[in-house]
Amino acid sequence: MSHASRRTALRALVREAGLDALLVTDLVNVRYLTGFTGSNAALLLHADGDARTRFGTDGRYLTQSAAEVPDLVPVIERATARALIGRAAALDVAALGFESDAVTVEEHRALVDAAEGVTLERAPGLVQQLRVVKDDTEIDALRRACAIADAALADLIAAGGIREGRTERDVALDLEERMRRLGAQAPAFESIVAAGANSAIPHHSPTGAQLRRGDLVKLDFGALVDGYHSDMTRTFVLGPPADWQRELYDLVARSQAAGRAAVLPGTQVSDVDKASRSVIADAGRGEQFLHGLGHGVGLQIHEAPALSASGRGALAEGMAVTVEPGVYLEGRGGVRIEDTLVVLAGAAEPITLTTRELVEL
Amino acid sequence: MSHASRRTALRALVREAGLDALLVTDLVNVRYLTGFTGSNAALLLHADGDARTRFGTDGRYLTQSAAEVPDLVPVIERATARALIGRAAALDVAALGFESDAVTVEEHRALVDAAEGVTLERAPGLVQQLRVVKDDTEIDALRRACAIADAALADLIAAGGIREGRTERDVALDLEERMRRLGAQAPAFESIVAAGANSAIPHHSPTGAQLRRGDLVKLDFGALVDGYHSDMTRTFVLGPPADWQRELYDLVARSQAAGRAAVLPGTQVSDVDKASRSVIADAGRGEQFLHGLGHGVGLQIHEAPALSASGRGALAEGMAVTVEPGVYLEGRGGVRIEDTLVVLAGAAEPITLTTRELVEL
Repeated sequence: MSHASRRTALRALVREAGLDALLVTDLVNVRYLTGFTGSNAALLLHADGDARTRFGTDGRYLTQSAAEVPDLVPVIERATARALIGRAAALDVAALGFESDAVTVEEHRALVDAAEGVTLERAPGLVQQLRVVKDDTEIDALRRACAIADAALADLIAAGGIREGRTERDVALDLEERMRRLGAQAPAFESIVAAGANSAIPHHSPTGAQLRRGDLVKLDFGALVDGYHSDMTRTFVLGPPADWQRELYDLVARSQAAGRAAVLPGTQVSDVDKASRSVIADAGRGEQFLHGLGHGVGLQIHEAPALSASGRGALAEGMAVTVEPGVYLEGRGGVRIEDTLVVLAGAAEPITLTTRELVEL
Repeated sequence: MSHASRRTALRALVREAGLDALLVTDLVNVRYLTGFTGSNAALLLHADGDARTRFGTDGRYLTQSAAEVPDLVPVIERATARALIGRAAALDVAALGFESDAVTVEEHRALVDAAEGVTLERAPGLVQQLRVVKDDTEIDALRRACAIADAALADLIAAGGIREGRTERDVALDLEERMRRLGAQAPAFESIVAAGANSAIPHHSPTGAQLRRGDLVKLDFGALVDGYHSDMTRTFVLGPPADWQRELYDLVARSQAAGRAAVLPGTQVSDVDKASRSVIADAGRGEQFLHGLGHGVGLQIHEAPALSASGRGALAEGMAVTVEPGVYLEGRGGVRIEDTLVVLAGAAEPITLTTRELVEL
C-alpha cells in the first residue's frame, strides 16, 4: 500500500473522531504515512486531502525529504510541530487532533501556546489503529527481516560460532555482524546472548562470561530491514542435555506450540496468552514464566497487540505477532522459544523458520 | 560519583522545587540515578533519603535489578510508574513531581488516576540539570568512547577501507564492526557515510552508492561505551582535492577551530555558535550551514546544552559538547568536521583526537 493510501485510510479515522486534521509527531507514524526516515519531522494531515496536508522537517533534511516525500508540501523549520500548528488556521483547521500518547506534557503546553485559533484535542492511537494490520509491503519486509535472522543463526551455528570458551559478547557480535552482512540495516534491538545461569535472566545483556559445556545458551535477536523488525529466540544446549534441561525445553516447546496454534483471526489476545501459559502453569511452573506471551512487531520492535493476560481485543488478519513463552529457573538456567507469525485468513504462518527442536551444539 | 551521591544531589533540587518526592520515569534518568540498564523501570525518589525511596521494574528484571540496584527497596510490577505512585501516600508524599518533559499526555492521565491522596506537579528537567555537568566516571566513559571511534577510523584507513568502488554501506559496516571489536557496545547512532554529492546531505543514510575518485567522503559516527556516546565527523577526499574542495574544507576547518576556541566555562552557548558561524557567514556561505553548531553528549547522543543561535545559558566546567560546523553545496558535496570536547577550568579539551587536516585517501 502506498503512503498516500495510508493517509487516505487515516482520514476516515480523523473525520470519525470529529477532527479537521491530525498533527502527527510520532516519528514512526510519520514514516508510516510519508516514507520519511529522518530524525525530525511532523505531519499536519488534513482531513480534506493531501493538497491541504503539510509535511514538516528541518534544513538538515531538505534534500532527503524532497526525495522521500515528493508528494506533500514541505515546511522547513527547526521547531517543526509548532511551525505546522501555526499554519493550521490558514488551512481551515478548527479542531486539530494531536497524538496525546506521544506528546509530552511540556510539548503539549508549547503546542497550545502556538495554536492560535485552533483547538487541540487528544487523539491517541489513530495511526496505530492502522499500523496494527500490516499490508503486503510490510509483511514482505518482515519476512525478509526474519529470513536474515534465520540465515545469520544458521551461519553462526555452521561456523561453530556457539561453542565452549567464547564469551556471550563474542557470540552476540558475531551474530550481529552476520545479520549486517546478510543485508540488515542494524540489529532490531540489543541482542540477548545468555549462557548457563544467565539464561534464567529473561532480558540479559551479553557479558564477558564464557560459554561452558552443559550450558543452556539463549539467543534473542532480530534484524532491521527497511525499518521493520524481526524478533526470534532460540535456546541451545552445549553438549548432551541434562534431564532437567530436556524437560524444561520440552515444556516450553509444548507451550510455544499451543500458543502458535491459538494465533487465529478473531481470537482474543488474552486467550492466546492463556493457551500457552496454561501448559506451563499445569506443570507447576506458572510463577517462572515471568512475562507476557508476545507482542506485535513492525516499525517498532514492541507494538500492538500485546499478547498477555491483561491484553484486550482480538487478533485480525494481517497482524504480525511474536509467541515467546519462557521458563526461568533462577541460578540454573532458562529456556525461551520465540517465533514471529503473521495472522492469515484461517491460520497463522510462522515467518521464523529455524527449527524449534532442541539442538545440541 | 556514585549513584547514591547523584540521588543526594537531586534531593536538593527536589526540595527547592517544593516537592516531597520526584517520580522519575525517563529511563535514561533512572539509569543515571540507579545504574539500572533494563528497558522498564521508574524511581520514586523521596526527598527524605534512600530509605523511603523506591525502585520499580518488572519480573523480567528481577535478577538484574537486584544486581544493579542493590541499595534501594524494589517494587516489582509491570505497570511500574503506577505501582510507585500507589505507594507514595504511605511514604508521606503529598506533593509529587513528575517528569513532564518525558511523560506523555496519556501517561499523565493514567498517573493522575493512580495518584490517590497525592498531588502531581510538573517538574521538567531536574535530573537533566545534574546530567549536563559530567562527573569523572562519566568523562572517563566519554573518553573511552571517543578513543574507540578514533581508533576504529584509524584502523579503517590503515586497512584501505575508504576506497574507490566500495559502497557507503560497506564503509559504514566496516567502521561499525571495528568499533565493536574495539569494545563498543554498539554504534552510538546510525553511522553516516556520504560520498560525492551525498556528502552535501547533512544527515545521509549510507546507500549502495559507490565511492569514486574525486569524491568528498563524510563520516559521522560514534561508539557507545557504558551507556555513553561519542560523536565525531571527518570528511576525506579520494585523491587530490579540487580547488573548491580544498577551499570548502579550509573554511569549515577555520570555523571549527573558532568554535573550539570559544568553548570556555562562562561563555554563552549562543556565542560559541556565533564564533564558529561567523567565519562561514563572512565567507558568504551562512545559508549553506544548515544546522546548529553542536550539542551536549552523554547518556544520550543529543542532550543539553544545545550550541545554537537560539540556545540559552552558559557553558560550565564538566560539560561535554560537540563542535560540528558544516557547509553543504547541494549536488556537489559538503564538509563537516566534528569533535567532542570536555569543558575544563580554563579551556576545553578535545577528546576526539583524529587529525583535523584534510586527508587524501
